[in-house]
Amino acid sequence: MPVNLVAPEAHSLLPVPGVELGIAKAHIRKPDRKDMLVIKLAEGARVSGVFTTNRFCAAPVTVCKQHLAAGHGIRALVVNTGNANAGTGEPGLQNARATCEALSGLLNIKSEQVLPFSTGVILEPLPMERLLAGLPQCVANLGEQHWFDAAEAIMTTDIVSKGASRQITLGGKTVTITGISKGSGMIHPNMATMLGYVATDAAISQAALEALIDHAVNRSFNCITVDGDTSTNDSFIVMATGQAGNAEISDVDSTEFQQLQDAITELSIELAQAIVRDGEGATKFMTIQVEAGKDVEECRKVAYAIAHSPLIKTAFFASDPNLGRILAAIGYAGIDDLDVNAMQLYLGNVLVAEHGGRAASYVEEQGAAVMQEAEITVRVVLNRGQANATVWTCDFSYDYVRINADYRS
Amino acid sequence: MPVNLVAPEAHSLLPVPGVELGIAKAHIRKPDRKDMLVIKLAEGARVSGVFTTNRFCAAPVTVCKQHLAAGHGIRALVVNTGNANAGTGEPGLQNARATCEALSGLLNIKSEQVLPFSTGVILEPLPMERLLAGLPQCVANLGEQHWFDAAEAIMTTDIVSKGASRQITLGGKTVTITGISKGSGMIHPNMATMLGYVATDAAISQAALEALIDHAVNRSFNCITVDGDTSTNDSFIVMATGQAGNAEISDVDSTEFQQLQDAITELSIELAQAIVRDGEGATKFMTIQVEAGKDVEECRKVAYAIAHSPLIKTAFFASDPNLGRILAAIGYAGIDDLDVNAMQLYLGNVLVAEHGGRAASYVEEQGAAVMQEAEITVRVVLNRGQANATVWTCDFSYDYVRINADYRS
Repeated sequence: MPVNLVAPEAHSLLPVPGVELGIAKAHIRKPDRKDMLVIKLAEGARVSGVFTTNRFCAAPVTVCKQHLAAGHGIRALVVNTGNANAGTGEPGLQNARATCEALSGLLNIKSEQVLPFSTGVILEPLPMERLLAGLPQCVANLGEQHWFDAAEAIMTTDIVSKGASRQITLGGKTVTITGISKGSGMIHPNMATMLGYVATDAAISQAALEALIDHAVNRSFNCITVDGDTSTNDSFIVMATGQAGNAEISDVDSTEFQQLQDAITELSIELAQAIVRDGEGATKFMTIQVEAGKDVEECRKVAYAIAHSPLIKTAFFASDPNLGRILAAIGYAGIDDLDVNAMQLYLGNVLVAEHGGRAASYVEEQGAAVMQEAEITVRVVLNRGQANATVWTCDFSYDYVRINADYRS
Repeated sequence: MPVNLVAPEAHSLLPVPGVELGIAKAHIRKPDRKDMLVIKLAEGARVSGVFTTNRFCAAPVTVCKQHLAAGHGIRALVVNTGNANAGTGEPGLQNARATCEALSGLLNIKSEQVLPFSTGVILEPLPMERLLAGLPQCVANLGEQHWFDAAEAIMTTDIVSKGASRQITLGGKTVTITGISKGSGMIHPNMATMLGYVATDAAISQAALEALIDHAVNRSFNCITVDGDTSTNDSFIVMATGQAGNAEISDVDSTEFQQLQDAITELSIELAQAIVRDGEGATKFMTIQVEAGKDVEECRKVAYAIAHSPLIKTAFFASDPNLGRILAAIGYAGIDDLDVNAMQLYLGNVLVAEHGGRAASYVEEQGAAVMQEAEITVRVVLNRGQANATVWTCDFSYDYVRINADYRS
């Protein structure tokens, strides 16, 4: 069951002026399930995206990058679940383009103004007939109120839908930010099997938007891992319609930029953490915090070594303070000159290890008490520099195996 | 259950002249279980070792390296299970040295002529009283015939014991090679939570022995992974007593060296594969073969990306030919300039993917048939060079979670 995560209330997802959403049940994978989403953007919206680093990136990812680069402005996004259109070669690219073409015809825009997204099974051809039949359904029910349904339409193995809103005031104008995300397995940064869409009505220049998305993604979606598998389809999109009436933000040193960046980053962290809380089979939410390293890179290495270790993840599932497994992971994280005698390891607030061994003050009952919590912080203090990094992950349970052994059957 | 692996027959493990083995039940972890082993070597034996690269290496590993470097010649090895003596700081080093000291007194040798090994729980102090009480028991029953018992004495979560023998003829003399190994979790190269001991009565120079062990370990124990966790205690030791009567081998280009190296490498592969076949919860034995890469390094990257993916391992557990997950792993393996359209993927002999997508000839029933086998080869042909690499691993089952969630309880 998801760890301290419930689906958003429908009314809590605030409409964003200039953003309409339409949903369809296209029967792509399962009957009678919302599985398609179209997002329509008002003219003049600015859009920026970050995509998977997987070399086997899916056809829609390739097309997204081309269409963003084409520079005609983005007016619509189309998402299907149930099929990833990945590992599908040239026919996959044709199908992604045909999807854009069909939607552009319905909306009377250019094909290059559409971004396509797919998530689901890899290596299967996209069922184009059902997908194309779903498009007019989506377009027929476009509306600004449909964020809740949109969050549900993009789910795959997710147990609960994920979405959140914020409002801030920029230069006297109320600005709304609403986002949705999906994903619960094949989760690893750069990027996870995740789709994330954040929209705002703030006015912001394209260059400032791109700076903002980098900042936000590096502190949110690029800090989560469920199983270390980097998906072929990950995409994170920020859309800004400019309809809030604020003066366009273009100076990245301005207060307004910082305010908007902070709000979107905070919302992105919430959406990213929701993916971990709903990690396949998750029973615990773990924060891995590595401090006082020489640089962020080595802090992340240590954090991911811990976050990816099946031995550690199963020990957390069992609520077993088997802390030796954490020391082992720190030891193989790849810092060649690490002085294991100089570092400290904390479980929650409990000092567990220092001077290369168990802390003299450590009492196993204290560790065991921390392990009973649903949310646990593992803190590693390397004591060799000023850099820090945080990674969020979940434990590894029987249900992870069950879910992934059964996924296609 | 172990995949096509049964314990060796007692009579199949041949004595090696100059090597005596003694076993004790020292109650270190569980009552009435063989958990200590002493190996005594005749004077003049040559010994070489390869150890974990984990920065949190265990105290006995540190002491082993010091004693090998001391150059007094090694006359005895002592192994305990149930406690790894890792993450134990300075007291752990003192305990490892005290163990060597005690055994050296019993055998009338120098303390620096003893190599200590521990495997089991990390971060717990070594129970010295029980361990020291076990030493005289081991010494009291030293004998050349005890390889079978020795293989059992070093087991931890292993289901079956692991050992094998070979005989070859070198310069007209019969040479015997016998080895044992242990390990089934926290298995990843450089090295795995594994202990491996191979003894031969061949006469070989120290320099030639060191060349040989590197060759053997890089083709055996450094090619296996169960869960990607590199242990704190891994050790692989080759011992050569020189009692076979062959002319001492010192030329690494000689036929005799090649013959001995081939035989020890082959035996090491058998012992290493046995660890994977007995991998925690394993139901499938997987060979990941990556061919035609630019260099061995990139072939190993791809092989390990596949071998470590929980999504792939659970799909194999489910006998589900979810080949898209393999493509995804190839894509995130870290080869930045990989042309995914140029490579081929085979499951067994079945061509599954090429030209960046599913092979036109592929029929899912063929993939499904291969997945039913207990031993499966995944073959990736990168088509960008001449290098190859092979990695052996196992699948990921409910039992892996159960074993690791329960390990300390």
